[in-house]
Amino acid sequence: MGEFELIRRHFARPAAPGSAVVLGVGDDCALLRPSPGHLLAVSTDMLVEGRHFFADVDPAALGHKALAVNLSDLAAMGARPLGFTLALSLPRADEAWLSAFASGLFALADAHACPLVGGDTTRGPLNICITVFGELRPGHALRRDAGQAGDDLYISGRTGEARLALAQLRGETWAPQPPNADARTRLERPTPRLALGLALAGIARAALDVSDGLLGDLGHILAASAVGADIELAALPVAPTLAGLAEAQRLECLLAGGDDYELLFTAAPGMRDDVMAAAHASDTPVTRIGRLTERPLLRLLDADGQPVAQPLLRGFDHFAD
Amino acid sequence: MGEFELIRRHFARPAAPGSAVVLGVGDDCALLRPSPGHLLAVSTDMLVEGRHFFADVDPAALGHKALAVNLSDLAAMGARPLGFTLALSLPRADEAWLSAFASGLFALADAHACPLVGGDTTRGPLNICITVFGELRPGHALRRDAGQAGDDLYISGRTGEARLALAQLRGETWAPQPPNADARTRLERPTPRLALGLALAGIARAALDVSDGLLGDLGHILAASAVGADIELAALPVAPTLAGLAEAQRLECLLAGGDDYELLFTAAPGMRDDVMAAAHASDTPVTRIGRLTERPLLRLLDADGQPVAQPLLRGFDHFAD
Repeated sequence: MGEFELIRRHFARPAAPGSAVVLGVGDDCALLRPSPGHLLAVSTDMLVEGRHFFADVDPAALGHKALAVNLSDLAAMGARPLGFTLALSLPRADEAWLSAFASGLFALADAHACPLVGGDTTRGPLNICITVFGELRPGHALRRDAGQAGDDLYISGRTGEARLALAQLRGETWAPQPPNADARTRLERPTPRLALGLALAGIARAALDVSDGLLGDLGHILAASAVGADIELAALPVAPTLAGLAEAQRLECLLAGGDDYELLFTAAPGMRDDVMAAAHASDTPVTRIGRLTERPLLRLLDADGQPVAQPLLRGFDHFAD
Repeated sequence: MGEFELIRRHFARPAAPGSAVVLGVGDDCALLRPSPGHLLAVSTDMLVEGRHFFADVDPAALGHKALAVNLSDLAAMGARPLGFTLALSLPRADEAWLSAFASGLFALADAHACPLVGGDTTRGPLNICITVFGELRPGHALRRDAGQAGDDLYISGRTGEARLALAQLRGETWAPQPPNADARTRLERPTPRLALGLALAGIARAALDVSDGLLGDLGHILAASAVGADIELAALPVAPTLAGLAEAQRLECLLAGGDDYELLFTAAPGMRDDVMAAAHASDTPVTRIGRLTERPLLRLLDADGQPVAQPLLRGFDHFAD
């Protein structure tokens, strides 16, 4: 048995009783039993060294993040996790690295009752591809195209800290040093907002998770829903670590930071109490930051409700030329 | 819009009406509607340059093969395809390459009514990760652990041609030149045996697809089912291109070649007519090549039914140290 076979076994764990897993790792396919009448939700993300993480990243944090970004997609759809597959390309079989990676991965998987059901390992440049499966009731999906003019716009948690941490790790000149530990945790161990996503089923209309910056991702809702939006800059929740930044940098972090994995969602104004009840029930901070508009225009409003000149803020694009 | 955004759009096609796809590419998750009462079958495979394919492979063939190896896993479980996700890491956005890759991928996807439902693209070393979803009726899964002593053992199609093609491409000294076009097609454009897998539901017991060599993969059924097997060497189907090889090389190709993607399966002796009817209905050649035995031993039998000294044949192991 080769060392990689040992590693494959390292990732093969029996599925918890009572889960949807009929057959887990080890056959040609895994078999899952979705709840009757539910839709299956599927998402996949691929993480590459040098682009999504640094070569010296804590492997336990990387294991956490690789699954977290996928669970965040389920959260943004309002889906309950059923399980995930892991495909892994590794330059070598470093058991210490893999053990740490698995510990971070499985800690998050266990916390959300989302078992590993299958996978593939191969030798090659480091690459992590996770595909996650969830389920939801028809009509409860939080789709990007479901926003309506007049909807309130909400954000969970706070944006911008991951961007600050990245700047601090990179040594960008504008970022204060030494690196902030809380911000780095936000970058390396994002929290998928699954409980909130589930609690918003039947309450929110459109939703997505903010991975490429609030404004850029909001643009996806606006395009899909054929609406515009007003954002009240003064309403944006600001982490203490961002408060001391110059305004341009603070806004860049808040609005175009990326790697936030917060839920950006809309709901009818009549649902404000329900939204806050969902936030409370899921123990997740939620802030109303604006509204959708008929005019297909994205505006940033100052404290007096006046549009401000929009700085050149774009979501981080992995492939910007 | 960056060039990679254009490519993402290149892969976004509307799902066919009547498919299980409720929501395809473009939201946080895809949404699928499995048939009521069915189980979900899931498999994932990652293909890396230099290990699973050569850098100069025809991209259309690569697109075909990347999906084919996943569909083959569904076939080996007896599942009907519902859809797949594609995660792609690319060193650069070469539109000609991608257009050819997509043409090979979608031709096979369309042939099996298996739409692309979601994906991810990133810049990095070339890596293709496909996750495929299918469905089957509970009790109809062709599991590796379902073999029983006394079962007949069958193989679909013929094994070994892909191994010959690989040897010819590599210039291994034992392989006759020039390369054989049919063998190369078997290597680069394997046929997933989906129709046969479906037709065997309720007829076959254990099954898997042969990807790492017939003997090595048979070992998985034997281990999972706690049985042994006798293989009649004279019964193995041999392609004309292999007939001229020396016996040792021919057996190596037939029994340990890899990349065959044929179905190796077992069925009770009373089901022989049903197996052949399934083969006929699915227009797939099927050959009975031996049987499962009580004694947990894998034996190769000559034309007189006598055990032969087993050559050192091992399935190709990506991670053999």
